[in-house]
Amino acid sequence: MRMYDVIAKKRDGKHLTEEEIQFFIEGYTDGSVPDYQASALAMAIYFQDMNDDERAALTMAMVHSGDTIDLSDIDGIKVDKHSTGGVGDTTTLCLAPLVASVDVPVAKMSGRGLGHTGGTIDKLESVPGFHVEISSDEFVNLVNKNKLAVIGQTGNLTPADKKLYGLRDVTATVNSIPLIASSIMSKKIASGADAIVLDVKTGAGAFMKSKEEAEELAKAMVSIGNNVGRQTMAVISDMSQPLGRAIGNALEVREAIDTLNGRGPEDLTELTLTLGSQMVVLGGKAETLDEARNMLEENIQNGNAIKKLKEFLSAQGGDASVVDQPDALPQAAHKFELEAKESGYVENMVADEIGHAAMMLGAGRQTKESEIDLAVGIVLNKKVGDYVEKGESILTIHANQTDVDEIKEKLYNNISINSSEVQAPQLVHQLISQ
Amino acid sequence: MRMYDVIAKKRDGKHLTEEEIQFFIEGYTDGSVPDYQASALAMAIYFQDMNDDERAALTMAMVHSGDTIDLSDIDGIKVDKHSTGGVGDTTTLCLAPLVASVDVPVAKMSGRGLGHTGGTIDKLESVPGFHVEISSDEFVNLVNKNKLAVIGQTGNLTPADKKLYGLRDVTATVNSIPLIASSIMSKKIASGADAIVLDVKTGAGAFMKSKEEAEELAKAMVSIGNNVGRQTMAVISDMSQPLGRAIGNALEVREAIDTLNGRGPEDLTELTLTLGSQMVVLGGKAETLDEARNMLEENIQNGNAIKKLKEFLSAQGGDASVVDQPDALPQAAHKFELEAKESGYVENMVADEIGHAAMMLGAGRQTKESEIDLAVGIVLNKKVGDYVEKGESILTIHANQTDVDEIKEKLYNNISINSSEVQAPQLVHQLISQ
Repeated sequence: MRMYDVIAKKRDGKHLTEEEIQFFIEGYTDGSVPDYQASALAMAIYFQDMNDDERAALTMAMVHSGDTIDLSDIDGIKVDKHSTGGVGDTTTLCLAPLVASVDVPVAKMSGRGLGHTGGTIDKLESVPGFHVEISSDEFVNLVNKNKLAVIGQTGNLTPADKKLYGLRDVTATVNSIPLIASSIMSKKIASGADAIVLDVKTGAGAFMKSKEEAEELAKAMVSIGNNVGRQTMAVISDMSQPLGRAIGNALEVREAIDTLNGRGPEDLTELTLTLGSQMVVLGGKAETLDEARNMLEENIQNGNAIKKLKEFLSAQGGDASVVDQPDALPQAAHKFELEAKESGYVENMVADEIGHAAMMLGAGRQTKESEIDLAVGIVLNKKVGDYVEKGESILTIHANQTDVDEIKEKLYNNISINSSEVQAPQLVHQLISQ
Repeated sequence: MRMYDVIAKKRDGKHLTEEEIQFFIEGYTDGSVPDYQASALAMAIYFQDMNDDERAALTMAMVHSGDTIDLSDIDGIKVDKHSTGGVGDTTTLCLAPLVASVDVPVAKMSGRGLGHTGGTIDKLESVPGFHVEISSDEFVNLVNKNKLAVIGQTGNLTPADKKLYGLRDVTATVNSIPLIASSIMSKKIASGADAIVLDVKTGAGAFMKSKEEAEELAKAMVSIGNNVGRQTMAVISDMSQPLGRAIGNALEVREAIDTLNGRGPEDLTELTLTLGSQMVVLGGKAETLDEARNMLEENIQNGNAIKKLKEFLSAQGGDASVVDQPDALPQAAHKFELEAKESGYVENMVADEIGHAAMMLGAGRQTKESEIDLAVGIVLNKKVGDYVEKGESILTIHANQTDVDEIKEKLYNNISINSSEVQAPQLVHQLISQ
């Protein structure tokens, strides 16, 4: 087999066989297929797309390009959740204890990553004592015992995907549905997921700006999952404004505590219940989404969810008393209010720009070396559709610096107020289950 | 400027500016643009094409990527001819002395190259003593004196094209009209041509298999030439069967002598007169193609053309007596006849396969290191449309080996005979002059 022929075949709009896709991925991983052939193929795929069989084969070839995590010692169906990324997305912190409270095992492998705020591990580390330095055996035992544990990413997972993503990033071939979908799915599958729930974000703060694109990507990933024997469901949710009210590490932990206590922001609660219901159904603990939702709502009301959070934090060294006294979480030295310059209805809060403002405060990493300040961030007092009086606070800036003029300026530029009434955006656009 | 943006712009079907194209070509030549970005752009161009301005800019950027030949010391309009390559294409050997005989200056820079037979220089070297090791000054003086000289390729011409062609060759991006057209035109322009005549071949033995593709390429090149101030014309000619009768180095020189004496094969004579007429018009020596053709036919009849050939060979050390005694050219030790296995009309002679048979005899180079045997080759006694009796010779194999069974087998497999009458293919499909 020659890579030239694989490129030419895709260029001409034909379907690649599983063998051809494996040949490409294996060769690209071991270096026998050079970057310049891989980028030519990526561009050909950009134009000619891939059918379901090709997408499944590409995903599994990337899964097998490196280590895979074996979670078979954990009882039950391991359901993983993936979000395509947004601003103030506190769902993982809420979802993990909530679905674990109805006995769906959550074996969460997480990273730190770059972004507006830290990753799930960074956020959890705002709980004093909490750590993820546990052995694989301990991880498995904890999940079997408590149904929930979090560990840092280990092993050389999907090296082909890492290498290919790096190449696509510099050759204008990122924005291709089959390539995005197989990249995401390969990582989830290599991490040991038996079933997968996807939260595909759409809007200004999301990678997929339009609902149509988000729907296409969600359907592509659900297809791949189901074609490779991992039951998969997806939610398409709004990311035109930040989700919930908190953007920042400790601030989001506090928001998650509120949500598990039944006092969280409406949108975050709704999305947590929507995604959680899918996880419970896929985990085999309920027959229907309605039944699953009832179970989750009940566990918020009866305190089982918040109890699960405490159990989980303690088991990994964390001081669970913060759950009842959230003021013990890291606090920023200064608070600044962003006062409305006029009265009216909040029309727009550009999610990614507000996220970027949180990063400027120190909430997220710009480079791998950046230090995160767990205390800082932004809390929205108003959301799109809310009425605000002139002089009233739209949001509160939690900072460890005294000069926030530049950040305020940025926030003002990305929040608009309209004199006429404004409709709040729809949160959940679509549920996709096959 | 970032290469990423250039790729993304072309991927999205937009037109690149002259500056963007120069940025790409300069960066690719100096190595600051890596192969993997160049191949992604080439694939994007494959799908999104380039308009006339982009093609002209790409051509000139490649011209300026290296040395250019300055022929300004040669009087008159220097018209170069380029053929897209075929089998048994003896036209350069015929054309050069013929148009020089009507005072169009022919300053021919030629290579050796790979292929079924050698390049123009190899062929000419079958004339004892002939050589191309002359200085640039001598070259200029010879053209000014005799209107014709041939020199080996010197200087670092169009390095960007060489590098890009090498990359396209392994990334399935060769077959793109804007990339092929700019590649050919950049080489001709860098070689100092004031005006260009193109012979675009079509059929089994040609790169462009269909007439439509050949027409598209010819029009693209004529457009580029005229857009960058080099008057350009093109002929689309048949290459479904070999041109003329001879395939081999000394054999083609002999055929060129016959043609300049007015006794050449009909098709080779016709194509020589067609291309030659365009060269004479572009060289400013005739107003119309008809007038030019009359001048050329006259110079064949009155002996001026063959006289010019002798003058040219002598001037570069060659023994011009071979023109009158062609048996003094290198001769193969053995001749084998390919006898028809049945009577009928020759229906097909697959040009590239017959060319390949000549290469197997030693007439051409498979690799840069191959030694050429100037004497060997094939002479067609029948061409498509001719009637052949069973047992009559279809062609003669000139070999320096005694075992030609495999070659005969190959030839039989690529020549078909039909009991019903067969039409000879049309030689000149189209003339394109703007």
